[in-house]
Amino acid sequence: MAKELKNFTKRSDNYSQWYNELVVKADLAEQSAVRGCMVIKPYGYAIWEKMQRQLDDMFKATGHTNAYFPLLIPKSFLSREAEHVEGFAKECAVVTHYRLKKNPEGDGVVVDPAARLEEELIIRPTSETIIWNTYKNWIHSYRDLPLLINQWANVFRWEMRTRMFLRTAEFLWQEGHTAHATRDEAQAEAVQMLHVYADFAEKYMAMPVVRGVKSATERFAGALETYTIEALMQDGKALQAGTSHFLGQNFAKAFDVQFMNKENKPEYVWATSWGVSTRLIGGLIMTHSDDNGLVLPPKLAPIQVVIIPIYKTEEQRKEIGEKVAPIVAELRSKGISVKFDDADNKRPGFKFADYEVKGVPVRLALGARDLEEGTIELMRRDTLEKETVPLEGIADRVVGLLDDIQENLFQKALKAREANTRTVDTYDEFKKEIEKGGFILAHWDGTPETEARIKEETKATIRCLPLDGDLTPGVCMVTGKPSARRVLFARNY
Amino acid sequence: MAKELKNFTKRSDNYSQWYNELVVKADLAEQSAVRGCMVIKPYGYAIWEKMQRQLDDMFKATGHTNAYFPLLIPKSFLSREAEHVEGFAKECAVVTHYRLKKNPEGDGVVVDPAARLEEELIIRPTSETIIWNTYKNWIHSYRDLPLLINQWANVFRWEMRTRMFLRTAEFLWQEGHTAHATRDEAQAEAVQMLHVYADFAEKYMAMPVVRGVKSATERFAGALETYTIEALMQDGKALQAGTSHFLGQNFAKAFDVQFMNKENKPEYVWATSWGVSTRLIGGLIMTHSDDNGLVLPPKLAPIQVVIIPIYKTEEQRKEIGEKVAPIVAELRSKGISVKFDDADNKRPGFKFADYEVKGVPVRLALGARDLEEGTIELMRRDTLEKETVPLEGIADRVVGLLDDIQENLFQKALKAREANTRTVDTYDEFKKEIEKGGFILAHWDGTPETEARIKEETKATIRCLPLDGDLTPGVCMVTGKPSARRVLFARNY
Repeated sequence: MAKELKNFTKRSDNYSQWYNELVVKADLAEQSAVRGCMVIKPYGYAIWEKMQRQLDDMFKATGHTNAYFPLLIPKSFLSREAEHVEGFAKECAVVTHYRLKKNPEGDGVVVDPAARLEEELIIRPTSETIIWNTYKNWIHSYRDLPLLINQWANVFRWEMRTRMFLRTAEFLWQEGHTAHATRDEAQAEAVQMLHVYADFAEKYMAMPVVRGVKSATERFAGALETYTIEALMQDGKALQAGTSHFLGQNFAKAFDVQFMNKENKPEYVWATSWGVSTRLIGGLIMTHSDDNGLVLPPKLAPIQVVIIPIYKTEEQRKEIGEKVAPIVAELRSKGISVKFDDADNKRPGFKFADYEVKGVPVRLALGARDLEEGTIELMRRDTLEKETVPLEGIADRVVGLLDDIQENLFQKALKAREANTRTVDTYDEFKKEIEKGGFILAHWDGTPETEARIKEETKATIRCLPLDGDLTPGVCMVTGKPSARRVLFARNY
Repeated sequence: MAKELKNFTKRSDNYSQWYNELVVKADLAEQSAVRGCMVIKPYGYAIWEKMQRQLDDMFKATGHTNAYFPLLIPKSFLSREAEHVEGFAKECAVVTHYRLKKNPEGDGVVVDPAARLEEELIIRPTSETIIWNTYKNWIHSYRDLPLLINQWANVFRWEMRTRMFLRTAEFLWQEGHTAHATRDEAQAEAVQMLHVYADFAEKYMAMPVVRGVKSATERFAGALETYTIEALMQDGKALQAGTSHFLGQNFAKAFDVQFMNKENKPEYVWATSWGVSTRLIGGLIMTHSDDNGLVLPPKLAPIQVVIIPIYKTEEQRKEIGEKVAPIVAELRSKGISVKFDDADNKRPGFKFADYEVKGVPVRLALGARDLEEGTIELMRRDTLEKETVPLEGIADRVVGLLDDIQENLFQKALKAREANTRTVDTYDEFKKEIEKGGFILAHWDGTPETEARIKEETKATIRCLPLDGDLTPGVCMVTGKPSARRVLFARNY
């Protein structure tokens, strides 16, 4: 059983298969009976809860409150903003009827044709339209601004090719929707939330990100500017981990949301929206995990420390239990989540493998000899290093170790990214380098045509124009035309 | 403006209209553009967050973990459990298509007829079917049991007559779904969760409830037994505030979920499900609020204390601010949520009215004279009593007062319920008494026919057979047949 648990495809053999197996073996999620929709299992959901709690605290610390808007959106709302409908009104779930009835010709139930809706409803793929239709009634004067609201919700996009966490038809996310009196304030909000996302990614997920702005082609449908955090996965592909949009006055105009300014003149409201989703869990997995399973940064690990007793007799088991109790209590008093797994129906070897696959950052094991010698075995999941240490002072040691692991994971990921970020000057070189994966910094003439050509010929896209990137001008690697600055390319998820 | 805020319909004039106005004026929720769906505004959602956090802690303390299952359910799943489909497959939102396309004959988008689903999908009205279809793969042996899972989610039931919080097409809720090896264990789980709900209602919502079991007619579709908590609103109508179902082996049989028991023989799994929803907010409003607006129990109030400065000059404002800062800090250090509202664009009178309508439990006001005399004005929302007290020691006084308010609200509601719970022996008396509202304890012969007749003739339903009720036998008030015990009747929401 222990062997089976750890019997993974290796990352170097087939990264994609390794990922799919890991999601299942670490008990994070599984495919459901509904096409493209996953079931998030308790262990996977516990990671999401930790992410949510932290992000929610950060949103509240920056002045936002939560609210809840309807799941269903009238079809006509999607058409109000011209670009938005292009981007979102295509592949979506459409509610056309509101009643089932007994099948008159056999078993089961059928859709009642008499219960057809006058106007079809769409399951929200994102909520700008329904929210701005609501904001219209909330905003009258500059005194009502800014409006800083976030929503935790499920959304639905009928994706053709899905992968658990990375791209699913239904997913969980948060979407912030803010309204401002001035262009500058809305811009600043969009940038602020980008930094909130980046801080969360780096400090909690231990996942280094490049903060940047999207090219026009890659912008959110309806935005004037899309800010993004881009992370590099172990296989050299980029993952867009969060986006923050400056929407200008597009939605205010589409839904006629005006306010009276201090001079008592009507103006359209300025908007932002920003979101991260359960996709972050995919990023977390692909940033840190190894051929032995999941590796979790301590700050997001549902179980930070597991303690496993190794005993032969019931008496030993009892004795170990007594020894462990004060350690558990001390760790918990320090805010650490500990599991003491003395379940009798699984052997230590199985437990070791299971918690390794599940990525528990620190494992403590205590056997008969440890009892005699006043020691305990300590294993850190990130390096798999084991050592036998004194029982005395173990809680403090674990606290320090958890900090070390958090920092080590970030540094390791950062080094991997640095080693896989290259600067390239010619298109030939680019074509060769892109095959190796990684981020490539290159000059581009700024046109959608060149961008499209690069994508078609190399499958690489412009991930972003890094905010703190090199602003030295040059010439486009493809066309030789002037380039204002290097931009960041990669193949991506 | 202050006047307008408080210009309510009185409860005694029109309770239903008072409720609807209050929901809007206290900024809790509003109707959305989608029929029967509400927007939960930040202040209303903040109450829901407090409820969620507390309930979630209580679920975890009783061994449950959270997970997430798909929003959409294949139509055929609903038909698997014969009674369940009767109860839930009627009024629901049906997804029939997965794509829109540009309207070939004009503006906007239309449903693409080529994108019709082979099998329609239903937006979950409740998740037993999709969850038991999933549990089938999770449960093989007695070692996999019990499975104790909860989900926080949105659900959808196409209700014809909706009222904000009390009955909406989409609502937010939690649904626990547990699987057990034995009948007794599942029964005990259903009862345990009933008590968790009751404790939450009484200790946090300050809403007294009767714990009981439903008659067969009022059972959840597919359950063997439904436990309920029933509260009495100020207008004498009952509110079913939470239910916990013992599902027997019905869903295990419908989805073929068997486990190998300790004797290595296959058995069907025993199940429970249990849920409370945003309807609780409706109950909270109708239990405590008065003609001046919302009254919130301190434990669920998003703002527990508001402090309002009363000043004429900027200097006074500054001086008051300095005086207030350490009070705010001290209250926060005691875990109390405080708002110091020194906004310049609203007058104290407006603020007073606004926080009164919003039900903030304690209001402190500080003016120039208070500065001189070292005093502060204190108002408690539950009784509207005002007093001027020493500034010295104000934080401790507020802490004590919040406890008093919490307790006072519960006792007041309990007295109101006791005053409106009557015992009745004849059907004539029953018909007269039911017009006055309230709970009525009466004998019933235990048949669905008599129950149906009472409902038709008096609009009263059996709310429950109270768990700790009087078990003395008697004769049915309607038919004169033997009755095992008195049951609880009321008209209800």
